[in-house]
Amino acid sequence: MVRPKVVIARHLREEVMRLFDRPDLDVVAWPSETEACDRNWLLNNIAGATGVLVMLTDKVNAELLDAAGPTLCVVSTMSVGYEHVDVQLLARRNVKLGYTPDVLTDAVADISVMLALMAGRNVRSTTNIVQNGDWPNYPWSPFGFCGPQLSTNWIHSTRTMGFIGFGRIAQATLKRLVPFGFTHCLYASNPSSLPNPTRDAEVAQKYGLREVRRVALDELARESDVVFVLAPGGPELYHIVNEQFLKQMKKTAVLVNTARGTLVDSEALAKALREGWLWGAGVDVVEGEPKVAADHPLVKEPRCVVLPHIGSATTETRLGMATTAAKNLIAGVLNEPMPVELKMTQ
Amino acid sequence: MVRPKVVIARHLREEVMRLFDRPDLDVVAWPSETEACDRNWLLNNIAGATGVLVMLTDKVNAELLDAAGPTLCVVSTMSVGYEHVDVQLLARRNVKLGYTPDVLTDAVADISVMLALMAGRNVRSTTNIVQNGDWPNYPWSPFGFCGPQLSTNWIHSTRTMGFIGFGRIAQATLKRLVPFGFTHCLYASNPSSLPNPTRDAEVAQKYGLREVRRVALDELARESDVVFVLAPGGPELYHIVNEQFLKQMKKTAVLVNTARGTLVDSEALAKALREGWLWGAGVDVVEGEPKVAADHPLVKEPRCVVLPHIGSATTETRLGMATTAAKNLIAGVLNEPMPVELKMTQ
Repeated sequence: MVRPKVVIARHLREEVMRLFDRPDLDVVAWPSETEACDRNWLLNNIAGATGVLVMLTDKVNAELLDAAGPTLCVVSTMSVGYEHVDVQLLARRNVKLGYTPDVLTDAVADISVMLALMAGRNVRSTTNIVQNGDWPNYPWSPFGFCGPQLSTNWIHSTRTMGFIGFGRIAQATLKRLVPFGFTHCLYASNPSSLPNPTRDAEVAQKYGLREVRRVALDELARESDVVFVLAPGGPELYHIVNEQFLKQMKKTAVLVNTARGTLVDSEALAKALREGWLWGAGVDVVEGEPKVAADHPLVKEPRCVVLPHIGSATTETRLGMATTAAKNLIAGVLNEPMPVELKMTQ
Repeated sequence: MVRPKVVIARHLREEVMRLFDRPDLDVVAWPSETEACDRNWLLNNIAGATGVLVMLTDKVNAELLDAAGPTLCVVSTMSVGYEHVDVQLLARRNVKLGYTPDVLTDAVADISVMLALMAGRNVRSTTNIVQNGDWPNYPWSPFGFCGPQLSTNWIHSTRTMGFIGFGRIAQATLKRLVPFGFTHCLYASNPSSLPNPTRDAEVAQKYGLREVRRVALDELARESDVVFVLAPGGPELYHIVNEQFLKQMKKTAVLVNTARGTLVDSEALAKALREGWLWGAGVDVVEGEPKVAADHPLVKEPRCVVLPHIGSATTETRLGMATTAAKNLIAGVLNEPMPVELKMTQ
């Protein structure tokens, strides 16, 4: 019997690679974890393969599928997004696609809360002061380093969180904000989807919120103390956070983007921070990343915390994504049901 | 009638200074918000005063009380700590002391959660990479920038928080961690206080935790995924977090100190981080602050986030502290009950 060949386009941790130690597979693996798979290596090695495991750094297009040939029946990507995959082409050629959503929900919700706190509490400027040895030059003063408080307090007995996009990560973030005293939740979602007031009332009751309500973007911008951008990418939402949105925000509010860089107009956000339309921002994603230089408008802005897309970067979550990707590949190749398959329409 | 004289040792925001616009008081105020009150100015102006409002930058000792003379009957400090006040002397001279605890609880709990997240997620090194324009040199890789996940996940279905000191701020922090999936809470407190298993069971039930239990420091160090130092200062707890404690911590755990710098041995913590005894640390307070130079052992440590004591630095909280201090002063001078008076024993 000929064993099906699988190609792994990145070395994963030993505990994951061990899943491929099985007599019924012929495994070819790129040897490096930190260096992306060389394209020519991949094109050469994929010939005759039944399955391939890729990262979001590997383009899955006609070139790759042609190099593989007609044996290829499954692509497994270790990512929640699949912008690097020509999904239509896979559907036409009857190649299944496995991916790894869900497992990163909690890691991204954690960092969303972290960025909301950091953006309000002037963490970028204060940590720089300490790192530069300038702390001795900033003696204590009653309102030194002060920013707006995320949690409810003696002045503000209500707090409103706003979400652009209201999927799993948004709701995991919502849950974490409840004990900070948040009382209201507003969200904007895809205009073509139907409102779901029953679900909203259930969420409100479950977490003891006074209100969970779908609103237009203008109201979301005006009323929220913190706005989380947690929508999918794509051309229809390009720069959904723009000058018009930012101008309507509260001066004490903060903006957090842990979704896709293209959702926020970087120039507009930098201008808004410079001119004080809102208090601060925390972004884990930037349009054009990783080509983000030190003089990028957001990197220059002291009220903006910029992280290099580490939302899902916890050891546990990335191991979970790698494990799911491995299991998707093996199941697909052996013609068993894949743990998480993307259902494609042609 | 002679109006009682009060001295305000710092200019506070207008909304607070307005509280002193009253015909029954003779008010003398230091004009600056950001510059500490000059000692000679204070000594000269306090003569004959009935009350004085001070910051933690103003020493309240025999020199100051002698300069005030026998008219002085109330000192109001805008602070939760009173290390700058000779409490025994005030008691002997029958001078009342007002202070401002409680109002800062939520602000400090907010920043405690923030530092726990930052310490785990490598925020110091990743933000520096972006600020230095190095993001393009760190292309995505499956385990790049990974740290331990604060929230529960597919590998860890339990999470344990540990508190050194279990007062109001610790419990406000506990509450915030519950939706991150924390299941267990351990705490160490003053050995001379009695255990309170009934209260512990109530806290566990209220927040759906499997366990809230007072333990010895060794067990706290060994079992906690995150340790929060939230004890009072003072000589008996000096360097309670030392090499012995740090050596017992989990390699994936993080340490957060938002209480007093003297509670943690900075050299020991820097060594522990350098040698990987624990994952990371976040400190808002450092022994010897604000004299903390760029080459301080903790400031040099890439896995240590150091903030310049901004735990209570939200506009709302500092306004709350200033307002309470003003009301304490006015009530004390007019011989009315002070909103928050420290009960002193001689």
